[in-house]
Amino acid sequence: MKIQFDEINLRAAMVGDAHGLKSSEIKNEQGAALNALAGFRKLVEEGCYGFPHLPFQTAAIEEIGQYAAKVRGSFDTVCLVGIGGSALGAWALDCALHGPHPVQRACGPKHPRLVILDNADPALTMAALESMNPKKTLVVVIAKSGATAETVGVFLMVREWLGPKAAKRIVAVTSEDVGDLKALATRESYPTFHIPKNVGGRFSVLSAAGLLPAALTGVNIQKLCKGAAGMTHLAWQPDLAQNLALRSALLHYLIWTRKNKPIQVAFPYSNRLWGAAFWFRQLWAESLGKAKTRKGETVHAGQTPVAALGATDQHSQVQLYMEGPNDKVHTFWTIARPADPGRIPRTKLGLEGFDYLAGQSLAKLLDAEQRATAAALTSYHRPNCTFILDRLDEEHLGAFLQLLEFQTAFLGELLNVNAFDQEGVELSKKFTCGLMRRKGFEAYGEEFQRYEAKRAATRG
Amino acid sequence: MKIQFDEINLRAAMVGDAHGLKSSEIKNEQGAALNALAGFRKLVEEGCYGFPHLPFQTAAIEEIGQYAAKVRGSFDTVCLVGIGGSALGAWALDCALHGPHPVQRACGPKHPRLVILDNADPALTMAALESMNPKKTLVVVIAKSGATAETVGVFLMVREWLGPKAAKRIVAVTSEDVGDLKALATRESYPTFHIPKNVGGRFSVLSAAGLLPAALTGVNIQKLCKGAAGMTHLAWQPDLAQNLALRSALLHYLIWTRKNKPIQVAFPYSNRLWGAAFWFRQLWAESLGKAKTRKGETVHAGQTPVAALGATDQHSQVQLYMEGPNDKVHTFWTIARPADPGRIPRTKLGLEGFDYLAGQSLAKLLDAEQRATAAALTSYHRPNCTFILDRLDEEHLGAFLQLLEFQTAFLGELLNVNAFDQEGVELSKKFTCGLMRRKGFEAYGEEFQRYEAKRAATRG
Repeated sequence: MKIQFDEINLRAAMVGDAHGLKSSEIKNEQGAALNALAGFRKLVEEGCYGFPHLPFQTAAIEEIGQYAAKVRGSFDTVCLVGIGGSALGAWALDCALHGPHPVQRACGPKHPRLVILDNADPALTMAALESMNPKKTLVVVIAKSGATAETVGVFLMVREWLGPKAAKRIVAVTSEDVGDLKALATRESYPTFHIPKNVGGRFSVLSAAGLLPAALTGVNIQKLCKGAAGMTHLAWQPDLAQNLALRSALLHYLIWTRKNKPIQVAFPYSNRLWGAAFWFRQLWAESLGKAKTRKGETVHAGQTPVAALGATDQHSQVQLYMEGPNDKVHTFWTIARPADPGRIPRTKLGLEGFDYLAGQSLAKLLDAEQRATAAALTSYHRPNCTFILDRLDEEHLGAFLQLLEFQTAFLGELLNVNAFDQEGVELSKKFTCGLMRRKGFEAYGEEFQRYEAKRAATRG
Repeated sequence: MKIQFDEINLRAAMVGDAHGLKSSEIKNEQGAALNALAGFRKLVEEGCYGFPHLPFQTAAIEEIGQYAAKVRGSFDTVCLVGIGGSALGAWALDCALHGPHPVQRACGPKHPRLVILDNADPALTMAALESMNPKKTLVVVIAKSGATAETVGVFLMVREWLGPKAAKRIVAVTSEDVGDLKALATRESYPTFHIPKNVGGRFSVLSAAGLLPAALTGVNIQKLCKGAAGMTHLAWQPDLAQNLALRSALLHYLIWTRKNKPIQVAFPYSNRLWGAAFWFRQLWAESLGKAKTRKGETVHAGQTPVAALGATDQHSQVQLYMEGPNDKVHTFWTIARPADPGRIPRTKLGLEGFDYLAGQSLAKLLDAEQRATAAALTSYHRPNCTFILDRLDEEHLGAFLQLLEFQTAFLGELLNVNAFDQEGVELSKKFTCGLMRRKGFEAYGEEFQRYEAKRAATRG
């Protein structure tokens, strides 16, 4: 397993003092980074946060593998009903390991596909139901709370669509001891897997939430966890030269807070990593977007993550990244050795704009585009850095996702915010329950009416 | 055709003086808006910019329709090879009118699907080729310049994959009188359609670049253009109450520049509008991300567009939008009357977290989620507004895309930048050509070597 972090284009020597870091600026903060490591380690040892343990929970991993082996062959489609952290990890794995967004592979009992219903959108739901056969579909419903409105609404439709034998084709992933989904699973005897209490949705990719859909669609989850375990060992090293996650956390923290870069562009040069970019987008936004520090000081912290796809977005976003406000750090994600380079035929057509590419490969072109864009950004004083995965397989992917989770946790410590809650999403959930007339939310329905009255008065 | 713009939550009365606009602030700038309209009108009359004319070019529209009618039935897949503005418009139309991202519908000669190859990624290209049958595929290659590296590389592979009769299965869309693609198309007798010289890629959705793939996959391009024509008439009205594009341009301009919102969240509550959000992302970033004004003053203007999907991103990004920096304007896109509401079964399960949804619909839930999120953002002083499309059909979609193009053009006038060039992307293109050893780009290869040497020295 080999992952590198190329930080040179974050340096002042490359992008100037106003936008880049001097060696001394980095050195001065090494103590803060080591404190962040120690602080997070303590929280994990106290049992507050569980994601670092996930790749080592061999019994849970084996149980998932055995269940997947047992049911294999009885379905051509795995339909995941879940939203946010209950969908993004599974999508990141599927996109990276089974073929790139947006191509859908052919499916059959030996190679089932994954269909994800992660929205209350009727068009998405109806079109997906039409594309699946209820007799060849295994439904995985995932909700840690057991009562997420979008998931419940879609699940009720999917359950009816499955017909009278629905219970035989449903698996649940939820909390061990709370929630209506758990109660229904028990009553209807769904096979059920649990998300540990101390693992939040956006850190749950290596729990059953990510591993079960992956195992059901043929991913080698042992190797995935092996890669993540290796990265976890590295992430506990109190040594910035070895500890990639801590080093990248420190550099991202400094460039963000000291050089005023409120936006991070997560910029994979790979359609296979597009799912992971959306998974990262949740991890970064929801963990670090916080009104207050742990001490209660109001800070309104948060770096806005933007997912961009190379080389495609060179023809869409790079104009802005080059010439617009210098308010971004660009973090490229590349794959050094793609499985198939994509040979361009040798045929020369006598056309200057075509012939120089003959006999080369798409992989070489994509790599040139990425390095060219990094160089161009650098020459415009735009800081950028690159994560380089040697290959894109289970082991590297597991390691990379775990790296990004540790990086996020360390950032939370550096900012002194709680990276593991999400209070800010509660109000819109409560208004929704009020609008949908859920019992107990009448007060929010009334508050919403007052808001509408104020809007009417403003409209005049 | 009915599109509304709900601006109330941009008002100071709703989100406070620091983040919202007072009526007087809007009124004072009406003159600037009317000047922007007049300025843009003059440029269009002088022939500088062509997009407002596209929906009225009935001969070109008919020619595309006739060609599509002629070849109908001879393919089950349309494979588009193009990138940036040569792909995003077609994707926006396909996603909105043929079924939502990421579900792929079944295809056949009567209902061909669209496969878009818009990256030099070998994994995307190889997987897509594997999913198509060369004898049932019509290839549409689109490049205005005729020599876009990614498009050329992928096209050379696709052309070989088609086999000896390739020329019979290729259609080209390019400039009328320049470029290597035009030369090849002439030599190999591909049917060829042209993008007018004064229509840039990101404004080309109603040229052959968008209309041809749409017509080939069964879109009613007449209705699309009818909707766009109707919006064009509105967009020339010197009256902010009628002229939706001008009004939304002014409000987005004021909230961005006067209330310091460097980020715009384009926030459709519809998987069908996800493609349009990515199309918009290019339109906004590439048009308005500019180093200099037309007078040559250095400004580094640009508002970073972020595509978010409701309700999904309530479980990913809304925590940041609520509690993070108050640096965003949130522009919702909603559909008032979806084709199918998605009925949730009436069955009650005796579970409080499930039963309140029984008998309601996904459409109602999605609508409640959007209004709840708007209300929650408003109560946290976060400005937001909503475009409401009455339905999602050809006419409304054509009108909406044209509205956003006019809005962008007017914003360019208000900022006094050239919204129709993209100088900032040239350097990375030149470095790429240097790295791929294209003739004439040796100097950029050498400049890249100097950059690499500087990196090595910095690494130490």
